[in-house]
Amino acid sequence: MGKRKKILLSESDMPTHWYNINADLPAAGIQLPPPLHPGTGQPIGPADLSPLFPMALILQEVSQDRYIEIPDEVQDVYRIWRPSPLIRAYEWEKALGTPAKIYYKYEGGSPSGSHKPNTAVPQAYYNMKEGVKRLSTETGAGQWGSALSFACQMFGLECKVYMVKVSYEQKPYRKVMMQTWGAQVVPSPSPDTNAGRAILAQNPDSTGSLGIAISEAVEDAVMREDTKYALGSVLNHVLLHQTVIGQEAIKQLEIAGADWPDVVVACTGGGSNFGGIAFPFVRENVTGGKQTRIVAVEPSAAPSLTRGIYAYDYGDTAKMAPMVKMHTLGHDFVPAPIHAGGLRYHGMSAQVSALKEAGLIEAVNVQQGAIFQAALSFTKAEGILPAPEPSHAIWGAMQEALKCKESGESKTIVFNMCGHGHFDLGAYEAYMANSLPDFDYPEEAIQRSLQALPTVG
Amino acid sequence: MGKRKKILLSESDMPTHWYNINADLPAAGIQLPPPLHPGTGQPIGPADLSPLFPMALILQEVSQDRYIEIPDEVQDVYRIWRPSPLIRAYEWEKALGTPAKIYYKYEGGSPSGSHKPNTAVPQAYYNMKEGVKRLSTETGAGQWGSALSFACQMFGLECKVYMVKVSYEQKPYRKVMMQTWGAQVVPSPSPDTNAGRAILAQNPDSTGSLGIAISEAVEDAVMREDTKYALGSVLNHVLLHQTVIGQEAIKQLEIAGADWPDVVVACTGGGSNFGGIAFPFVRENVTGGKQTRIVAVEPSAAPSLTRGIYAYDYGDTAKMAPMVKMHTLGHDFVPAPIHAGGLRYHGMSAQVSALKEAGLIEAVNVQQGAIFQAALSFTKAEGILPAPEPSHAIWGAMQEALKCKESGESKTIVFNMCGHGHFDLGAYEAYMANSLPDFDYPEEAIQRSLQALPTVG
Repeated sequence: MGKRKKILLSESDMPTHWYNINADLPAAGIQLPPPLHPGTGQPIGPADLSPLFPMALILQEVSQDRYIEIPDEVQDVYRIWRPSPLIRAYEWEKALGTPAKIYYKYEGGSPSGSHKPNTAVPQAYYNMKEGVKRLSTETGAGQWGSALSFACQMFGLECKVYMVKVSYEQKPYRKVMMQTWGAQVVPSPSPDTNAGRAILAQNPDSTGSLGIAISEAVEDAVMREDTKYALGSVLNHVLLHQTVIGQEAIKQLEIAGADWPDVVVACTGGGSNFGGIAFPFVRENVTGGKQTRIVAVEPSAAPSLTRGIYAYDYGDTAKMAPMVKMHTLGHDFVPAPIHAGGLRYHGMSAQVSALKEAGLIEAVNVQQGAIFQAALSFTKAEGILPAPEPSHAIWGAMQEALKCKESGESKTIVFNMCGHGHFDLGAYEAYMANSLPDFDYPEEAIQRSLQALPTVG
Repeated sequence: MGKRKKILLSESDMPTHWYNINADLPAAGIQLPPPLHPGTGQPIGPADLSPLFPMALILQEVSQDRYIEIPDEVQDVYRIWRPSPLIRAYEWEKALGTPAKIYYKYEGGSPSGSHKPNTAVPQAYYNMKEGVKRLSTETGAGQWGSALSFACQMFGLECKVYMVKVSYEQKPYRKVMMQTWGAQVVPSPSPDTNAGRAILAQNPDSTGSLGIAISEAVEDAVMREDTKYALGSVLNHVLLHQTVIGQEAIKQLEIAGADWPDVVVACTGGGSNFGGIAFPFVRENVTGGKQTRIVAVEPSAAPSLTRGIYAYDYGDTAKMAPMVKMHTLGHDFVPAPIHAGGLRYHGMSAQVSALKEAGLIEAVNVQQGAIFQAALSFTKAEGILPAPEPSHAIWGAMQEALKCKESGESKTIVFNMCGHGHFDLGAYEAYMANSLPDFDYPEEAIQRSLQALPTVG
């Protein structure tokens, strides 16, 4: 037998608890500022959130418990694809000519092809347990909508997905995938909500936006007694659920006999796959005396951590979501139409933002041309075809590996490969035909967008 | 922890040898008739095949050794996705209301999304070892072309794929996937070969066929010193490589504490995924006293095992491939354009055919409407979205499970889920819109096609 490439855990090694970083933020000198009501500007309480979320998730959102048990029924569904593999990228190391040791955690084996079901499944479960019959949500490129459709099907819930119209038309197969799991999918703006009807009255040809779709999904949940809303990133409880990724990775590195990682890299949009792999390593830095560098890679077209400011802002364009203290480009900021649709968000998770502000994580931004170049370098060596989102992490890992080549150091690099690119081949085609534009923002544009920030906090 | 759903093997449990059923056919009273030269009608020897295949594969094709060692370099690439999971379909059992215990082996986690890399990887490896620089092949729907592109990339070979033009135009993303792995993909008929040019001269608008594409790929290999040809099914060495599937499944059933299976089900086109899971179970029937029923499920549009005859026929439409004694519908038979493109073949593996003829396996055919119905029943319960090809196996397993419901027996059913359906969502969309036709052949049509059989053997 040759060298050990893939480290698999058995079902019995699957984490039984999620890790809640809120419990360790005080030790890092961080006091997480409370979310504020979008109307009153006052701290929100559970009652404000109960039209949208089941109580179990609201309690997780504000919990200070370090570990929260994963229900058996959720573990049963996780087992369809979890534990996920950790893979040593031997061939890519060779291709890059680096002495670094590169490991990646591969989340593309889930039914919908990304890390999103890690939170969709518990969200559907807790709603089911509290008697909710139906969930509403929005989706852009379709990863989150697919994950929630799958999760709802597993627990017998109906699911309505408001899909940004331009994506609905460009990515019909994502829509069909959601339908195979029984979801109702409509293009947003839709005639099904007041918010949608208002937009259509103004502009019947509107191609929609994530902001509009959120407004529709939230209205749907608020207006119907049997329905609640689900969000795929940003919120504390979402990042909490994703920590199975980092917990598994730590066990797998131990099994592989690897050194404790020098660098952990992940892409960031709202922060969920980043938090998922990074938080357990942040814990070890804060409470275990470790010194892993933790690097967030974001697109130049949505550079909240690298070019935004740390301030209270609305979570959505329509100002219906709570105000959160976070790195933001302003809630009116519409990221350019890059292919990494999952990273096109004006803000950032409050937890990830606070860690950045405290200097516990680093961040860097990159253009999409560079990430597709990195993705092709990776897939030609390793075989697995990445989605554009994790290709940001691949690019980040590649920079670290090339620094090692320069210095001769054989550092251990771990990155999160959060989804496959089977639904993104149009983007690869455009890249290979040299027709993929880069996007950048002059400083004035960002400053202009930041003028719309609320004056609170 | 809840019940055990997914059985994973560690890398050290991965099979180290392929199982060669030729060694055990004599014990089953089977003497495999030799392949005949398409020109002379005489048994072919290694020299006849050497323009097409490297010697290592030719020797495997005729080997009588029971076990053939898997080279370390092949195992290293296998480790990207192997060992593959065996999953207990608890939720689907519940949805079907059956007392049966259903397990499926999931091969969709490979880089190209099916079982095909199990043979593409060793084929590319042995060619590389013998100094071949470039492989040519044909592909229909694209699964095999993707797998070989991936495998060639892993061993530094160039790869040229002749892709049936109608698929090239309908499935551009499969083409892009092959290109991301560095392959050159051309629509067939192409102007790159004599065979292609001749067709184009007659009919510039030809949409191509698998028969034409095979002719082009074979000509490419024969004409160039640096190039050999690769085939994705039918041949003994191809089925040999796939036996990692069944060998792993047997280990996993043991770990799960499952009963020895009563039934093993797989779909059949050329026979490679069927042979992969079934042959190790056939071995136990023949040499180990076991009595597992082994069921092949084929499409009504290409019913070679159920409606063809067992006779010598050409492997391809152009009569360039060897004549093989097999179940065939006649080499002129063009299966209707069902969505399970991987099963559209007029003939059947010689080994699978001989087992059928000897009564060691059963076969049944089914329409595509029924298989999509079964696929949706499966994915709504289990989450994983199957390709149309394994949906035939799903349908077969469902029939067995429903029989158990009737009789109250809790039999153990194992089926091969040989690929995911991420590139087949157009077919699901058509099915859900009730626009998917069934196809059937009157007996006269099959008899007419069988009149073209060669008069040998």
